[in-house]
Amino acid sequence: MRVHAYAAPAAAEPLVPTVIERRDVGPGDVLIEIKYAGVCHSDIHTVNGDWGPQPYPLVPGHEIVGVVTQVGAAVTRHRVGDRVGVGCMVGSCGRCANCRNGDEQYCLEGMVPTYAGTDRDGTTTQGGYSTHVVVDAGFVLSVPEGIDLAAAAPLLCAGITTYSPLRRWGAGPGKKVAVVGLGGLGHLAVKIAHAMGAEVTVLSQSLKKQEDGLRLGADHYHATGDPGTFARLAGRFDLIVNTVSAGIDVDAYLGLLALDGTLVNVGAPAEPLSLNVFSLIGARRSYAGSMIGGIAETQEMLDFCAAHGIGADIELIPADRINEAYGRVLASDVRYRFVIDTATLG
Amino acid sequence: MRVHAYAAPAAAEPLVPTVIERRDVGPGDVLIEIKYAGVCHSDIHTVNGDWGPQPYPLVPGHEIVGVVTQVGAAVTRHRVGDRVGVGCMVGSCGRCANCRNGDEQYCLEGMVPTYAGTDRDGTTTQGGYSTHVVVDAGFVLSVPEGIDLAAAAPLLCAGITTYSPLRRWGAGPGKKVAVVGLGGLGHLAVKIAHAMGAEVTVLSQSLKKQEDGLRLGADHYHATGDPGTFARLAGRFDLIVNTVSAGIDVDAYLGLLALDGTLVNVGAPAEPLSLNVFSLIGARRSYAGSMIGGIAETQEMLDFCAAHGIGADIELIPADRINEAYGRVLASDVRYRFVIDTATLG
Repeated sequence: MRVHAYAAPAAAEPLVPTVIERRDVGPGDVLIEIKYAGVCHSDIHTVNGDWGPQPYPLVPGHEIVGVVTQVGAAVTRHRVGDRVGVGCMVGSCGRCANCRNGDEQYCLEGMVPTYAGTDRDGTTTQGGYSTHVVVDAGFVLSVPEGIDLAAAAPLLCAGITTYSPLRRWGAGPGKKVAVVGLGGLGHLAVKIAHAMGAEVTVLSQSLKKQEDGLRLGADHYHATGDPGTFARLAGRFDLIVNTVSAGIDVDAYLGLLALDGTLVNVGAPAEPLSLNVFSLIGARRSYAGSMIGGIAETQEMLDFCAAHGIGADIELIPADRINEAYGRVLASDVRYRFVIDTATLG
Repeated sequence: MRVHAYAAPAAAEPLVPTVIERRDVGPGDVLIEIKYAGVCHSDIHTVNGDWGPQPYPLVPGHEIVGVVTQVGAAVTRHRVGDRVGVGCMVGSCGRCANCRNGDEQYCLEGMVPTYAGTDRDGTTTQGGYSTHVVVDAGFVLSVPEGIDLAAAAPLLCAGITTYSPLRRWGAGPGKKVAVVGLGGLGHLAVKIAHAMGAEVTVLSQSLKKQEDGLRLGADHYHATGDPGTFARLAGRFDLIVNTVSAGIDVDAYLGLLALDGTLVNVGAPAEPLSLNVFSLIGARRSYAGSMIGGIAETQEMLDFCAAHGIGADIELIPADRINEAYGRVLASDVRYRFVIDTATLG
């Protein structure tokens, strides 16, 4: 099956319209007519080769929502007409301890990324900036009624990336949670942490987006560009979710944690970070990392978001504005996620 | 009350015999005739001024065991003749959230260290290299029958420092625990983790102490000086307790952790450490720190050690060999803790 898509022809080159091949629908597969695809910052890193050499042409996109148009004979989980989503992975070994435990994202044989990965049939996976995709039903999520389909797309990566650590490290009533950075991930972290019942603080470079932050559900908003912030908020938080991929002063952020508090990075800077171990020992603090979430947990997140009326704040764009959108993402000029209307691809 | 002691007259000078004043026994105090005092590496750091300027003359010692010889009118917890111990702290505010939660070591007003600290009456605390000490009953532990008193002394610091993170991070049956460094702390960590039911691995610079390690309860023993060790043990452990205060290659040790594993430092190098955040994110790992334990937890540790026949492996010395012992501690030439027989002080 040949389908329309937008692909990067080579590293750091603008994306161009193209046609790619999708595999036949196997017994365990689902064919999805893609309706919307979110633009994730990591799409840009990957396309640019920031994380190593990539296979080109490369179709990015791992925040995919659409409608099922065909299912394989063995598929019982999804039916034609269902609203579904696909996130950052489309396969894993299914046999290792982590897969068996529902942590497919940490598959010990390596999960199959939704694009620029090698699928089990040896072909290179191609992502969601496309009209259709064929995916193993085990990696297809149900998008509940009650979430706008376009606003749901970013939940598949930005949503689960923040939901998972918030859930794991106990965001909820009586907990003080800080979210570092108010971008695509951060704005969803604020909505989700607020819906979980936590007291939410945004820590952003400046107060530029303060009004937005409070509207999204934050109780407090502080500028990290003001050095007094770190003294005033010392020992305040139970959990800090850092959505910023640039390097941070780890000791300064650890100092904001109360006893037994945890700083969780969901992004990773390319360069190593430095920390003073006394920052950990002095209040039994932890510095942790978290990467997306498992399939069952992603479904739980979608159900949670539907129950709480949470979708991303998006700017819907036609496909031919992808390269412009990339530039604006790099300039942090988006509130808060670009989503491609794939109807414009055909 | 004037009592015999050994004190450092100034930074980095040898300890000398002296006589110091102990306060009168107040209504809430306990007078302890000290029998044994352990020699902790941190005594040496403090005496040498490695951690900042100190009040001199300075009597170190925070691994204290002895017998109660007098109690204040309000003391119900201890009686004359009881075997008791005192660890790294002799006071805290008692009112802050951490104190109320039994985490006196993290008192938000600062706990009172057993030596070189400022007590609530404004005097400087003096430690256990002495014949007697007067301590607030709330910071005096009961040493159960069944532990040799001399072997119990190191439990008050080295024991609780390792017991607390082992308990908190779930060392027990089915868990793979690594202990980095087989010194005063490490040898107790091995005994305690083994008694908790964990599968215990020692990670030591060389295989020099392998026989000891296995005798103490370790199931496996590997040399970190062999670079192949880090490849062979990749992703193996649920918990690593790092007892080494020197800097480590954090990424290398994080790489030994399985999904959701934690590396806990109980010592802190003076210099900042560097880590790559991908080492955390790649398997949802945590890097944490832990400092001694609370009073109730220290009692729990002593009861646990008594129930499992755990004491430190010690070398008993007379007081006039303290300076020689310091030299040997710095050369890692002790198996595994020097303990001063305070009967030699008088």
